[in-house]
Amino acid sequence: MPTASSPLTNVIRALAMDAVQQANSGHPGMPMGMAEIAEVLWRRHLRHNPGNPAWPDRDRFVLSNGHGSMLLYALLHLTGYDVSIDDLKNFRQFRSKTPGHPEVGHTAGVETTTGPLGQGLANAVGMAIAEQLLAAEFNRPGHEIVNHSTYVFLGDGCLMEGVSHEACSLAGTLGLGKLIALYDDNGISIDGHVEGWFTDDSAQRFAAYGWQVIAAVDGHDSHAIDVALLAARAESERPTLICCKTRIGEGSPNKVGTHEVHGAPLGAAEVAAARVHLDWPHAPFEIPDAIYAKWDGRMRGSVFENNWKARFTTYQATFPDLANEFSRRMRGELPTDWAAYVARTLAEIAAKGENIATRKASQNAIGALAPRLPELIGGSADLAGSNLTLWQGSRGVAKGQGGNYLYYGVREFAMTAIANGLALHGGLIPYTATFLVFSDYARNAIRMAALMKLRQIMVYTHDSIGLGEDGPTHQPVEHLACLRLIPNVDVWRPADAGETGVAWVAAIERDDGPTILALSRQNLPSVSAAVAPARIRRGAYVLVDCAAPQVILIATGSELGLALDACQALADDGIAVRVVSMPCAEVFDRQDDVYRATVLPRGVPRVAVEAGVTGFWRKYVGLEGAVVGIDRFGESAPAGQLFDCFGFTVTNVVATVKSVL
Amino acid sequence: MPTASSPLTNVIRALAMDAVQQANSGHPGMPMGMAEIAEVLWRRHLRHNPGNPAWPDRDRFVLSNGHGSMLLYALLHLTGYDVSIDDLKNFRQFRSKTPGHPEVGHTAGVETTTGPLGQGLANAVGMAIAEQLLAAEFNRPGHEIVNHSTYVFLGDGCLMEGVSHEACSLAGTLGLGKLIALYDDNGISIDGHVEGWFTDDSAQRFAAYGWQVIAAVDGHDSHAIDVALLAARAESERPTLICCKTRIGEGSPNKVGTHEVHGAPLGAAEVAAARVHLDWPHAPFEIPDAIYAKWDGRMRGSVFENNWKARFTTYQATFPDLANEFSRRMRGELPTDWAAYVARTLAEIAAKGENIATRKASQNAIGALAPRLPELIGGSADLAGSNLTLWQGSRGVAKGQGGNYLYYGVREFAMTAIANGLALHGGLIPYTATFLVFSDYARNAIRMAALMKLRQIMVYTHDSIGLGEDGPTHQPVEHLACLRLIPNVDVWRPADAGETGVAWVAAIERDDGPTILALSRQNLPSVSAAVAPARIRRGAYVLVDCAAPQVILIATGSELGLALDACQALADDGIAVRVVSMPCAEVFDRQDDVYRATVLPRGVPRVAVEAGVTGFWRKYVGLEGAVVGIDRFGESAPAGQLFDCFGFTVTNVVATVKSVL
Repeated sequence: MPTASSPLTNVIRALAMDAVQQANSGHPGMPMGMAEIAEVLWRRHLRHNPGNPAWPDRDRFVLSNGHGSMLLYALLHLTGYDVSIDDLKNFRQFRSKTPGHPEVGHTAGVETTTGPLGQGLANAVGMAIAEQLLAAEFNRPGHEIVNHSTYVFLGDGCLMEGVSHEACSLAGTLGLGKLIALYDDNGISIDGHVEGWFTDDSAQRFAAYGWQVIAAVDGHDSHAIDVALLAARAESERPTLICCKTRIGEGSPNKVGTHEVHGAPLGAAEVAAARVHLDWPHAPFEIPDAIYAKWDGRMRGSVFENNWKARFTTYQATFPDLANEFSRRMRGELPTDWAAYVARTLAEIAAKGENIATRKASQNAIGALAPRLPELIGGSADLAGSNLTLWQGSRGVAKGQGGNYLYYGVREFAMTAIANGLALHGGLIPYTATFLVFSDYARNAIRMAALMKLRQIMVYTHDSIGLGEDGPTHQPVEHLACLRLIPNVDVWRPADAGETGVAWVAAIERDDGPTILALSRQNLPSVSAAVAPARIRRGAYVLVDCAAPQVILIATGSELGLALDACQALADDGIAVRVVSMPCAEVFDRQDDVYRATVLPRGVPRVAVEAGVTGFWRKYVGLEGAVVGIDRFGESAPAGQLFDCFGFTVTNVVATVKSVL
Repeated sequence: MPTASSPLTNVIRALAMDAVQQANSGHPGMPMGMAEIAEVLWRRHLRHNPGNPAWPDRDRFVLSNGHGSMLLYALLHLTGYDVSIDDLKNFRQFRSKTPGHPEVGHTAGVETTTGPLGQGLANAVGMAIAEQLLAAEFNRPGHEIVNHSTYVFLGDGCLMEGVSHEACSLAGTLGLGKLIALYDDNGISIDGHVEGWFTDDSAQRFAAYGWQVIAAVDGHDSHAIDVALLAARAESERPTLICCKTRIGEGSPNKVGTHEVHGAPLGAAEVAAARVHLDWPHAPFEIPDAIYAKWDGRMRGSVFENNWKARFTTYQATFPDLANEFSRRMRGELPTDWAAYVARTLAEIAAKGENIATRKASQNAIGALAPRLPELIGGSADLAGSNLTLWQGSRGVAKGQGGNYLYYGVREFAMTAIANGLALHGGLIPYTATFLVFSDYARNAIRMAALMKLRQIMVYTHDSIGLGEDGPTHQPVEHLACLRLIPNVDVWRPADAGETGVAWVAAIERDDGPTILALSRQNLPSVSAAVAPARIRRGAYVLVDCAAPQVILIATGSELGLALDACQALADDGIAVRVVSMPCAEVFDRQDDVYRATVLPRGVPRVAVEAGVTGFWRKYVGLEGAVVGIDRFGESAPAGQLFDCFGFTVTNVVATVKSVL
């Protein structure tokens, strides 16, 4: 058993010191205090394979305190992942494998992108839920092809963030026995010793959530950590929090226990002193072969994987369909007959041509698509009946059980970050839901989904002042624009049931980022029944045309019907109008120049109509065009009155069009 | 002592039923279960004066579960506020005094706008902090002119939201003895019985925060509630949570205890049945005079207020300067010599002309202005040393103490919502801080500050890819645009120390909404030293001009220096360029047409330069202009390399300008 001063832990400290010193930039994170915890977990407990980082049944590891990225890079390097000593020397440098915070998809072995505090923890909750659901779905007696733990490191910052409350409360309710959190309790955050702003009894707090809490573990005592991890793994009904009391900067004789270690390199002199103190005589970035040999996890990992492969082979022989399905889903592929199924489904929707709210159309689309797509895992932040995210086949997830619907509770942020974890795990396509206005609560998790290029679908209903009486706190105004401006987010705001069906299909088929569906509370007329889905899929299309349009009306969602009515009124006045439906501006922006110029030819004045802020639309209508929108907060009143009051009337649209002619 | 079936409680139930029935719309909230709690608090404990809702030392009351707004409206009506029976009949109707959720400034006696769950609770924490700080500052032995409680009602939804964790954890650390929270524990949220998604032991959770918890109070037993409130008021060192077990819809014989009561009117038949059940024989909206008389709080309130006034008169005589200062601050007025002081300060900043980071310039501005403005209450979400929000006179707030700086911990959302509470209380001007990217975590509280028109100043540093090595999770890209698009938010992105000083003054002087200061991590050259502050105050101004500009370069913040360099290079190529600095687009948009046309005359092509998403700038450059910006996530690398990589170079700006000529 290694001790606190073991070379196997001190190599982590040496690498951290050396890489941070070399990078010589602010806020590098100096994960020296977690060396023993990391060593015991990664060398003795973590079931993973550096030779195949994507092995499906590996244990997941999340560094929620992502500023300590050098800890993870050191572990990846030492255990044999594709992270070289030169990569470590390039810590935080341009396009290195070792960016300031860990980035999934960028560095082998990194399971999620962390840095925004608390979200890694919520991602880990999502991964543990994914494991539980897939185990319930695919395991058979004697055939446990899904059976792994999820480990997460976290610090004081994660525990202060509200998302930790949301995620860990739900984790307790769901009894995620294979979730094991290791709390680096060093009593220091960036502003200094935390007593002035953080005095929670975190052990008691997590007990209140129904977790197993292993309190007061000496984070520098490898044996104690080992015992705690064994106890955590023995618990199957509750998640476990292991509270590890550590000293930040352990190994630095003069800076240990100070917040200076958190935000800056130690400096050459202190690094030299630490080398003496740690009895680490090797030059920077030099590691003895014997230490490499003890850390190398490739053999151990391939044993784990081969063992699993053998079990999977038996499983395959016994349950060939299940095995194929499991493999397909872990590869993130859609069913082979998907395209044909979708074509039929969309044709049926168009044939019905229902005049319904798009939230209702969304529920119908889920109901039509989900039976072919068991990987869909739905949920809502306590608004299932308003968001209409339940369908006939929905089975709520309960403690220790499978299912395909999560009652997330009133927890928008954790919901979204947990769904990111579900998507990261693989085998599932999460959809989440709340009112559009409360996407604010989840905003950074939406951004993280986009940054990580995750397939997550966010169903945001009640998408304008059209929600009516609940008033300005519940009426989104700026949200459509502000979600569209996040890079790599597709925001669909369908105008009717047909466009809603297409939007759902586009969201499911998109494999390089999240999709938002902004949906109406109120009923909307069917307008796209005659439009081929492929045209809607281009993000914007000409819905009504004329020989030589004098003006182009661009509208989305609930305002498309208004634009059509205005078009008719203008035609009566002898004004030739083209109406463009633009359910997804981002998809339209990705079309080729020719298509875009066909839909929106230069030289024809444009007027956009959307119940949201106007500024966004200048990129389509320019300075010479006009926007019928709303640049103030809404009010509490029946929806019809609000639309009138804020100028969403045929009269006003007609007048606006005439003002630009 | 009224009992559960007292007419004094049942009048609340009757009003709630009748108003909701009349409004007949979705999600009205049906606060029948809280009738006894409300009656005991409002009639027996709450020190307030319906005749003067703004009396400075009144107890504050926050309905954090704001969907139960009819409870508050009923209480306001019954106790004698300016809310009539006709107002109640107009519940949730266009421009009534009784909107769907309570709105401060709209209805007399409403202390804060609630609806987005959890934030009311955080507002209440802010109000309680304000009381503590003002008491420490203004009270003198024997002269307690500040001494009130803050009461907050909350439900399961508030407790599930992460912001409740952040706010209540900090409240515990600060030992807010005059904060009393009443938890309506009815076991129901919109999705139904909460056992499936919310199983916290909330009493234990709050004990872990260091609160006094009074558990298991029967919320329908007025005596038990009374005793609990007395115990809460007796505790001076800890905030108190009173857990009231209630039955949702109490009084409705057939729907009590079901989530149907949460989201819909009872229906005429059930209202009739409830009238019988409650022995409430009166017609809808009819209340016997005897009941009005017992509820009328005007006399009781004026006694409270007159008692306070008498004490304040004595205080005034003994401490005239303090009394004047207290009155000035509670009126929200700036010091009489403010304008002269500001003029001197800005002149000094201009004279220095320092080439420093705008975050540093912000710290200097705080240091210069704060000595004249003791109402400034600063803080940061654990980034004091990075946001540079501390100044020489900063005194951290500790348990039970005064001070002018809050160490908020890593709690961006609660920080912002708490600061809203500080601003709502009066007597203080809060400024808060984090990295710009983490404004995401606080986003809905920023929106609420804007909706409530609060004077709050948000110092958001590290405002672009210029923060460098921390990488894309920490680099804002869409944030400037997305904050500007929230109605009623002013976003200043100053280019140098001079503009930063002006931005701070504008933020302090603005009394109808919040201001965001987006500030650089990196040093920036002084460029505005020769510009009169009044010109900068217009939001955008011509910094460099020429006889007949061929192109206008518009830039903000750290990109203004680049625009100036490009201007020089273009001049060398014989191209005449005007450079416009636009530190605050919203303020510029509010200028008159003439001024705006003077700065940005029609017909001259425009190019905007800002290290953020390009879409926003189309409203200034149109379709024919161009934007040098960034529409993707950043990367981890030294800042200089990133600016080069993403095209923030003289070469690229020059080429872009030439492309539009």
